[in-house]
This record gives sequence, structure tokens and C-alpha cells, in this order.
Amino acid sequence: MTLRSESELAFLSIEHAVRLLRRKEISPVDLVEASLARIERWNPDLHSFLTVLSERARRHARTAEKELKRGRARSPLHGIPVSLKDNFWTRGIRTTAGSKILADFVPQTDSDVAGLLARAGAILIGKTNMHEFAYGITGENPHYGSSRNPWAPERMSGGSSGGSAVAVATGMSFASVGTDTGGSIRIPSALSGIVGLKPTFGLVSAEGVVPLARSFDHVGPMARSVTDACIVLEAMAGKYPKGEPRPNHRNLRKNRPRRLRLGWPKQFFFERLDDDVRRLVEAAAKRLESAGARIEEVSLPRLASAIDTATNLVVAEASHYHESQGYYPARAAEYGDDVRAHLARGHELRAVDYLRAVESRREVQEDFLAAFEHVDAIVAPTSPIPAPRIGESEVRIAGEGGTGVRAELLRLTRPANLTGNPAISVPCGFTAEGLPVGMQLIGPPWSEARLLAIALAYEEATQWHTRHPDLR
Amino acid sequence: MTLRSESELAFLSIEHAVRLLRRKEISPVDLVEASLARIERWNPDLHSFLTVLSERARRHARTAEKELKRGRARSPLHGIPVSLKDNFWTRGIRTTAGSKILADFVPQTDSDVAGLLARAGAILIGKTNMHEFAYGITGENPHYGSSRNPWAPERMSGGSSGGSAVAVATGMSFASVGTDTGGSIRIPSALSGIVGLKPTFGLVSAEGVVPLARSFDHVGPMARSVTDACIVLEAMAGKYPKGEPRPNHRNLRKNRPRRLRLGWPKQFFFERLDDDVRRLVEAAAKRLESAGARIEEVSLPRLASAIDTATNLVVAEASHYHESQGYYPARAAEYGDDVRAHLARGHELRAVDYLRAVESRREVQEDFLAAFEHVDAIVAPTSPIPAPRIGESEVRIAGEGGTGVRAELLRLTRPANLTGNPAISVPCGFTAEGLPVGMQLIGPPWSEARLLAIALAYEEATQWHTRHPDLR
Repeated sequence: MTLRSESELAFLSIEHAVRLLRRKEISPVDLVEASLARIERWNPDLHSFLTVLSERARRHARTAEKELKRGRARSPLHGIPVSLKDNFWTRGIRTTAGSKILADFVPQTDSDVAGLLARAGAILIGKTNMHEFAYGITGENPHYGSSRNPWAPERMSGGSSGGSAVAVATGMSFASVGTDTGGSIRIPSALSGIVGLKPTFGLVSAEGVVPLARSFDHVGPMARSVTDACIVLEAMAGKYPKGEPRPNHRNLRKNRPRRLRLGWPKQFFFERLDDDVRRLVEAAAKRLESAGARIEEVSLPRLASAIDTATNLVVAEASHYHESQGYYPARAAEYGDDVRAHLARGHELRAVDYLRAVESRREVQEDFLAAFEHVDAIVAPTSPIPAPRIGESEVRIAGEGGTGVRAELLRLTRPANLTGNPAISVPCGFTAEGLPVGMQLIGPPWSEARLLAIALAYEEATQWHTRHPDLR
Repeated sequence: MTLRSESELAFLSIEHAVRLLRRKEISPVDLVEASLARIERWNPDLHSFLTVLSERARRHARTAEKELKRGRARSPLHGIPVSLKDNFWTRGIRTTAGSKILADFVPQTDSDVAGLLARAGAILIGKTNMHEFAYGITGENPHYGSSRNPWAPERMSGGSSGGSAVAVATGMSFASVGTDTGGSIRIPSALSGIVGLKPTFGLVSAEGVVPLARSFDHVGPMARSVTDACIVLEAMAGKYPKGEPRPNHRNLRKNRPRRLRLGWPKQFFFERLDDDVRRLVEAAAKRLESAGARIEEVSLPRLASAIDTATNLVVAEASHYHESQGYYPARAAEYGDDVRAHLARGHELRAVDYLRAVESRREVQEDFLAAFEHVDAIVAPTSPIPAPRIGESEVRIAGEGGTGVRAELLRLTRPANLTGNPAISVPCGFTAEGLPVGMQLIGPPWSEARLLAIALAYEEATQWHTRHPDLR
């Protein structure tokens, strides 16, 4: 077994680690030890994990080592340390959803995803920090400490799957699984410089996930490369409708359209952007263009107005859940201020406003479907701004000030939650201050294979995903 | 051509009329004249029609006569006079939905159903009276006069498709098409002594129907026999899921299960009934039993509580529609008192209450699905009471008093609207006072063919459907 440094091991791609595991050059035990060493060193500062499963992971690593020695590889994830956002039920393992209310909750069953990852042989290294009940985009958490951006720890990781993004970006786990109700996979992925995929609504089961808003909740992979994201998706994806290609990391390139057509939205997505973000996303699109893609304008005329009403759907569904569990208003004092305020708003919302928003949602879905008659994917920034400072509530964008940080961070990811379309965020460069920026690619329903292939084409033409934060 | 009396012609079954038309013993002109004569004589008292299309129907009858002479029968409905509830858009023909607000509304397009009936060759004889905006079960209408029960004109026809039931029961039209959001096809059918079928949700298009509550609105046939109801359904039904049999009146018996299992609900449906209704429905079940059916108890444990919350769904969806059209609250004064009160309630309802009701709905759907693992259809009364007097707001049931007429009339039909299951009402006898009573058969989704076959087996064993009201 070749000696490798802890950081060499911890930053291996899953794809590469699989080859080394197969050749017995490394063992799952090495990978787990490398991850645990980094968790021990950096987690106290970065607040990436709420629960670290050191002994359990070591035990599973030894079992995996034996199985692999006997040539019994269950999947490419066999023996790979992964983390799970703490809103996935894990049998016998505390599942807080980042809340005080569930601080001592130990589920008696696994979420579907926890079960699927275990069957695939992945080693659960820990449960990651998150915005309370996934109800926020900043990753700030009043109960467990805010997860911190590994590129600039005084800045936000983004949320709600902030701990997952930090764990993956820093080599504390090889990949993670998050949930995305308004951008909660893609935003922390963009802000932390990793790949995050929100699949088509319903593709990955949300059974056993503490819900935020059921008709918006998506489960998806977070990883350091497009191929690794695909490997994790493969272990979790449910059925595809007949005729739609199932993503497969071994032949992703096959799904790249021969004449790639990319949509450049005329409305909404490029209206108010940080200068660096605009420059980097435009450069990324040019890069795809010079690799042969044709870029066409697409129109989404009813999106802007629908986005205003989309909030109504989320607040109502969230309040419904918290009331049905008896958490709100009974235990209102145990919530953070922001979550309590959202729940109060949802509590009061009228059904007619909810139903009007349902109607707008259908209109936007039609707009997107019409756009996808002409293009394979739509290009947009993931976040209009790089990571804000922790505690910051207002932000200046391109010289204009006074906009709420939360609304800005969510603005460009929410459309794909409203419509259920798959969307991926891939690293596309760094601001002058050295903060990562993400490009978002949105596809038609069930187009994950193609979306990953396009993202891979971009990734192969760039080096952004190979840079890791320099922790000190 | 044999000379036949007007009432002989008007009360022909469609099945029989088709044979006579094919043999040229009668002409569509005879049928239209018979219907129009009865409308002219009885409609002023019974308020069955809001619009009578005498000249248009005569013109279409002459065309149909010529086509049939040339042997060009488009369908069993070709040349048959039918009526349509006045909430179906009809191109160039006033469509009031029983309201003052739409008193002068003339659509520029046909509803899907109006188009399908026209293509089948049916002759539209008129648009029928209804509860305002279909938002009521009594058929009382403050703007156009209440439709009256043909068996006892001081009594309610039931609603909201009251005019349709009266038109069919009195031979003013051979069949009609109604809508059913809480019982609006089945209740007036039961109270007027005809057959009414609410198909599986979505089987018949509601496109171009003035909606009441979109997730509850069902379109279905009303006729004087099971076979006639099947003929009308055939002309309107959309696609069935693969493997589900499409109803066909020519071989309905084929779909009768060899060992018919009928479900007798332990809860809800037999809890509070008029004595005559209970006696007649029990006798009907016995009749089916002696014809070979096995009757088993079925349990629907979550139905009773779900029914309370179901109202939340209807009021919210109704208010959403009326608000989105700008009718409410802007034109509140133009509604009848009852409808205005419902809309005010829906206006105030909170989204969390709506969503709780959505959840209950799923639970009841599960209860029904579980029951249908053991039985082919569930037997119940259609209405717990026979037709109340017009103006009556409270009713005594089996000696106990003080229950609201509206709530009682709706009570046993609403479950199938909540779940979307198909349900048919067939005549099963008369009270001591001579008022018709209906038996309801509820089936699993897409089981119309079997449900009609079971209803036909009962009809063939009885004579109830051959009795017509004796108008004076």
C-alpha cells in the first residue's frame, strides 16, 4: 500500500479512490481515517458536523475492507466516507434537523436515502450542520453554531445544506447528500466551490426526510466533481419515465448533445448581479460556446411575478408541517427568530393566496417547457452574490445597496424548485477576493444524464474544481 | 312510421329509440317534437330549463334525419335529444351557470363535453337549471326559480344538477350531462328517480365547465336507465389507464364479476338514515345477494373525520376561482345569500387548514383502496333522506331533528368526490309518500364498466326505473 498524505487521501475523487481501492493500493480504513483527521482538526472552527460517527465509521470501514478484499464491491461508493445532512432520518443516530426541538430525536428507521447509501456500501462518517429545519439559505444556526465558509471563515457557508458543502469542500467527506427546497443544495455548493445537483422533483425519495415544504423538497448529491455527483446520484435515484436515460458515470459523455444548444434567459436571471459573478458566468458560457455550444436567448415571461407568489407555497406547506407535528405554535420559543417569523407568516396565509400561487406555478412550468423546446439547458448564475459575511442581513450588489441577503441568495435558485426542473451548480471561478462562484445549468424534467454531461464538458475544460480551500 | 303518443316517444330508452331510428320507424324530428312538447307543457311549473333551443334542435333533427336515412349513424346518440347543465360552455348559446353574474354570458367556444356530444350527433334541446354556480345541493335558485321535484312539485329536485334530473325524469330530454362536486349528479338523480353516474375524477373532461372546485368537479351522465347512462358516458369518456376496461353498453354484462363481492360499510354510510331509505337500500342489497352477490363488511376508519375537513378544500377552491375572475368580493351583492356566505368563508380560510384537508383526503383514499382489495363495489344510500320541501332548512331523520338539510343531502355523496372514486345512483324504490330513493354503488378508480354492470344486474331484477312521475 503506497503511503499517501492525509490530504492527498481526503481530496481523492471518488472515481479515483475506487480505482485505488480496487487495486488494493488504499483501504476504506485509510479514507475514513483521513476524513476523521480533517474533521477533528477543522470541524471545531467550521461547524460542519453536528454528529461525528468515528467508531461506527471505523467499524464499517474494516468490514468494507474485508468485503473489498474478497472482491465483493457493492457499488462505486463501497468503502467511501460520505456525510448526510442532519434532516435525513438515520436509525439509532440522532437527527436534529438543525433544531432545538429535535435535539434529542433518535429515529427508529432510516430514511430511504440513508438505507440506499448503506446498501451501496457507503460509510456514513457523520451528520452535517444545517439551517434550522432547512428553513433558511445562510447556514447560520443559533442552536449549534453557524457553518463557516472554508474559503473565508468569517463568511457564510450558505444553507441550508451548509455543513454538507463545507464537509465536501474541505475533504471531511468525499460527498454528501443535501436537500434543496429553494436552493439549499446549490447555494452552499456555489458558495463553497463544489458541485451540487438538485434532481427532478421526485427522482430521489424524500421519505424519511424532515420536510420543509413537501412539494418543493428535493434530495440530491453534493460532491467535488461532476462524476462524483453522478456516482452518488446513481446510488439514490428512483425510476425514470420510460425513454429517459438514467445517468451513468461510466458513460456520461454519451449523453452530451452533439449540437449543444444553451439558453440564455432574457428575463430575471441576469438582472441584478455582483460584477464578478456576471463576468465569471459570462466567461463560462463563452467557454462552452467555444467548445461548440450554440447560445440562444430564451424567454420566461411569467417567471418574475410567479416567484413572488412562490413564497406563499413554501410558507404554507412549512407551517402546515410544523403545526401538524405540534411544534408550532406550542413550542414557538424554541425556534430561532428567523424560522419562527416564517412559521408565523405561514400560519396566517389564506388558502386563496396559496391556490393563486399554485396556478402561477403551472404557468412558469409552461414557460420553462416552452423554452426547452429550443435548448438543452438554461445557463444562469447560481447565486447573484458570493458568500456574504456571517451576520450580514443586507447586501450591496453592483454598487446598489439595501437588498436582503436571504432574498438575494435564494433569488436564482428558487425557480427550479417552483417548477421541479433539475438544476446543477458547478464551480466557474473565483472573485477578486478569492471567493468561489457557481454557474447553474437548468434542464427539462428527467434530463439529469444530459445535464451532468454538459456540466462535465465544462468541468473538463476548466480547473476550478481542482482547487481546494487552504485551511490554516 | 307507426303513430306513437308523445309520452311514448318521450320516455323511450335511448337503447330502444336507436333501434326504432335505425328501422326508420321514428325520426329524430319526432323525438325532438316530443321533448319540446313536454318542455312547453311542464317547464313553466318545474323550472327545468333555463334556455330551450327549439328552433336549433328542430333544425339539427332534420339534419340528423337525413344523415340517418343515408345510413350514416355517428353513434347511438345520433338524433337523440339531450340537455346540458347550464355550466357547460356552449358556443353562441347563453351559459349562466345559474347565476346573475353570468346572466348574459355567451361563450365563443364549446366545452369539451358540448363538442363531444355534438360530434356524436346528439341534439341539444336546451340548457338546464341549476343551483347558482353549482354551489348548493338543493336546486333552489333565487335568480331563475327553483327546479321542482316531478314526483312532488312542492319538494326539491335536489341539486346542483336539478334541472337535468327533472328534464330526464319527465321526458323533456332523453338524457342529460351534469357536474358533481359534492353529489350534484347523484343527489338530484336519487331524488328524482333516475340513474346518475359520477365517473372517476378526470375521466370526462371538465374543460369549458364553469368550475366550482377544480379538484372535486366531476362530469357525468344522467339518464333513465343504466344502459342509457353508459351510452352517454361512452360519447364523453377520455382515456382509460392501460388494462382498465372501457364501458360499452353493447356488452356491459361481460364486466359483471362472476363472484360479485359487495362491501357494506361499517362506518358513516348507515349511521343516520330516514327509515324508508334504510329499508329500501337494505332490500336492494338483499336483492343483489339473492342474485348471487356476497356481502362483506368493509371498514373506512378515517372517513368520518376527513369529511369535516373536506369542506375546507371546496370552499377554498371555489373562492379562489371566484376571486380570480373578479366576481368576488367585487360583485358580492349579485350572489344568492347561500353562495355569498360560502364564498366569504372560503375567502377567510387559512392555507394550513387547506393543507390539513389535503392530507386527510389522501388518508381516505387509502382507506377506500384497502376496502376495494376485498370487494368490487361498496353499497350505500345516495341520500339519507328523500326530497325535502322547497324552503325547508332543517330536517328530522328517523325521529331525530334539527339537522341542516344541505349537510344531510350532501353527507353520503361527498366521500366519492373527496377520493375521486366512481359512484352511481340507481333507483331502488319509493317511500311511503311516493318519493324516489336511490342506492349508491361506489367502485375503485376506473371501474365504471364493472360498476355499470353491477347496476344493470340490479336494474334488470327490478322495475323501479320504468316508473315515471305522473304529471298533472
